Amino acid sequence: MKKPRVVIIGGGFGGLTATKALKNADVEIILIDKTNHHLFQPLLYQVATAALSPGDIALPLREILRLQNNVKVILGEITAIDRFNKKVILEDEEIKFDYLVVATGSRHFYFGKNDWEENAPGLKTVSDALRIRERILNSFEIAERILFEASLNSHNADVKKYLTFVLVGAGPTGVELAGAIAEISRKTMLKDFRFIKPERTSVILVEGLDRVLPMYDRDLSEKAKESLERIGVTVLLNTQVTAVTKNGVYLGDDFIETNNVIWAAGNTALSLQKTLETELDRAGRVVVNKDLSIKENPKIFVIGDAALSLDEKGKPLPGVCPVAIQQGKYVANTINRDIKGKPRVDFRYFDKGSMATIGRAKGIAEIAGLKLSGYIALLAWSFIHILYLIGFRNRYRVMIEWIWIYFTRRNGIRLITNKTEGILSEEQKLKV
Amino acid sequence: MKKPRVVIIGGGFGGLTATKALKNADVEIILIDKTNHHLFQPLLYQVATAALSPGDIALPLREILRLQNNVKVILGEITAIDRFNKKVILEDEEIKFDYLVVATGSRHFYFGKNDWEENAPGLKTVSDALRIRERILNSFEIAERILFEASLNSHNADVKKYLTFVLVGAGPTGVELAGAIAEISRKTMLKDFRFIKPERTSVILVEGLDRVLPMYDRDLSEKAKESLERIGVTVLLNTQVTAVTKNGVYLGDDFIETNNVIWAAGNTALSLQKTLETELDRAGRVVVNKDLSIKENPKIFVIGDAALSLDEKGKPLPGVCPVAIQQGKYVANTINRDIKGKPRVDFRYFDKGSMATIGRAKGIAEIAGLKLSGYIALLAWSFIHILYLIGFRNRYRVMIEWIWIYFTRRNGIRLITNKTEGILSEEQKLKV
Repeated sequence: MKKPRVVIIGGGFGGLTATKALKNADVEIILIDKTNHHLFQPLLYQVATAALSPGDIALPLREILRLQNNVKVILGEITAIDRFNKKVILEDEEIKFDYLVVATGSRHFYFGKNDWEENAPGLKTVSDALRIRERILNSFEIAERILFEASLNSHNADVKKYLTFVLVGAGPTGVELAGAIAEISRKTMLKDFRFIKPERTSVILVEGLDRVLPMYDRDLSEKAKESLERIGVTVLLNTQVTAVTKNGVYLGDDFIETNNVIWAAGNTALSLQKTLETELDRAGRVVVNKDLSIKENPKIFVIGDAALSLDEKGKPLPGVCPVAIQQGKYVANTINRDIKGKPRVDFRYFDKGSMATIGRAKGIAEIAGLKLSGYIALLAWSFIHILYLIGFRNRYRVMIEWIWIYFTRRNGIRLITNKTEGILSEEQKLKV
Repeated sequence: MKKPRVVIIGGGFGGLTATKALKNADVEIILIDKTNHHLFQPLLYQVATAALSPGDIALPLREILRLQNNVKVILGEITAIDRFNKKVILEDEEIKFDYLVVATGSRHFYFGKNDWEENAPGLKTVSDALRIRERILNSFEIAERILFEASLNSHNADVKKYLTFVLVGAGPTGVELAGAIAEISRKTMLKDFRFIKPERTSVILVEGLDRVLPMYDRDLSEKAKESLERIGVTVLLNTQVTAVTKNGVYLGDDFIETNNVIWAAGNTALSLQKTLETELDRAGRVVVNKDLSIKENPKIFVIGDAALSLDEKGKPLPGVCPVAIQQGKYVANTINRDIKGKPRVDFRYFDKGSMATIGRAKGIAEIAGLKLSGYIALLAWSFIHILYLIGFRNRYRVMIEWIWIYFTRRNGIRLITNKTEGILSEEQKLKV
């Protein structure tokens, strides 16, 4: 008899965990991803803020799975899922499946205004992070150059726009980015520039709800806000972004002139899910059963950010890594039980807690009911992130980098690698 | 009295060394570069072959110079030099100078066929290296996918084109790239792919002259060739490239079908030099006096790859780092002597030797008349490269990576970070 074929779309936390958990199953696994690597997304903001290299937090999927003989890794993009004929369409090829695991993740949600994305990039992939890194570093370079040129002619120059950073959304990504940008503008860049006064930079965190980190306990939200303000971040709560333009961002009728808007608000599932022709929620997530399968087919699972799954109280599970990891493990287990003829059990999420860092030396955490803040939370945060990083080499490199940054306050990877001529000349034009 | 202003164009080995050597001089230095970082070019081939991260071998110029108070670093592109009015033109601004140091380096020379560059990229900048890395890794991914799809339909597929790598030019860059690509195709990738047989890959090094590393001693050239052949590189000497197309490369009437041509032949100076309106050689290099100044103005110096300077025997100095470094130091010294009213002395190049690595565990070197090869040469090579790397952090990281790769044979940074969809679908079309 032919082995059942399990097709897994996406090598993020959900898809990779499912793949690895099927290590000993008597199945043929085909793992398909648009990129060649697994990305440790919780540390992606550190690539965007020049603390880590992409290679520190990403590892080729092939390398991770090289000893698991029942997997084939394919680099490619699925354009549609044909659930009626049990196959996925891969550009010019079709692949039949017995089981399908959709673990495609999400993109940021621009409240239906997708044209905002160009001026307010989100942070989901390595290339997103590199684009944001270039944008931040370029802004400082442009400001320095304008001030230098003004000094040659003894003019005054206004560079506020380049030294204003607006983060939209105060979830973990927004909070951690705001803290990191505040740190590098005030500390890391201090001695590097001759004309920019680092204290002139301004970092603004905008949140639509009434507190930062809305998914955490209220006490921790309060502590996080205090920590952010202490390192110079302006926190605007109950504030909606109404428009994003090339020159800045509108908050209601107020306009903030800035060259640096970073989007960290909301999630929306990819359009691939639509081709499943099953029920989606408003954010495009697939509504799944208690065993994470879709209503129409018990052998098609959707996990992680791509799925809307509910906890025991009927509340949607948050779009965070631990959910994806636990769901990946659960689905692998369920497929195993199916094959062995055992009955399925429902998925239950076990919440181990949540945590975030603010700047260089501050953390907040809520672990198993325990609320921590300050150095202890930072240590816990560092320890857990190193632990969950995949690969000895990566763990080692990240740890070394963190110790380096902690003691020197100098983020090591401040490189602008794209051709900057275009950016510069365009920005320069705006100046006049 | 106002301090003399020294404008230095380019933060490579020549420009950066000149800047640092003027540390205690009573001058105002303006260092202008198109990128924000100094790049340790001798190790760039290791970024292209996924052994190192860009952050390991590049450091922001501002960071290197942050404590040197007489320097201002400006990110920007000089569009012209006006030697008659003693100023450089920076897009929308002019900067007057008392002394000018042109250290702009070179690009590869395509024998006047600049349209070859698109299909045969060279290796001079970080973005060049990342582009080549993506191209190499993508080729393996495409080959694997084509073989996978063929297996689904029990067809045969020809993927030779994707597994053939052609290096043009057997100078140090070509030789080191050939060795590194041969290593990763045979060793690193061995367990990662299910369908590709690594021994099917073919690496071809093409050289127009009669030996590899033509600037080295003939014995070492012979040893290098043997080492390359031992790890599976095909070396074609006395062979001219006559055309490069999207599908491969013509060597006379022979056509090699390949998706991977990398150009490592010849140097040509940038077009900026033309605006100096002084004598250039055929490769676009500025013909300089014995004190490295141009004929028309003793206060305008040209150094490194941008200059044609001759040794005592009237032979042109090679375009290598030690020449640029020594010239940078010399020019700083000469400016210092000028200011103090001392007479100038001629530049003399002191040749300390040359070296290269072949693959993982082989080196060749010629140091102070001593010819080395094998492990000892590799150790010498590693030691000297670490020593010349700028920044403690970089030295440390590179050393750790090398030890890691030496023992595991796994290059750590095998990331494809650009959107690959475009590349894949285009390549896929070619397949049919």
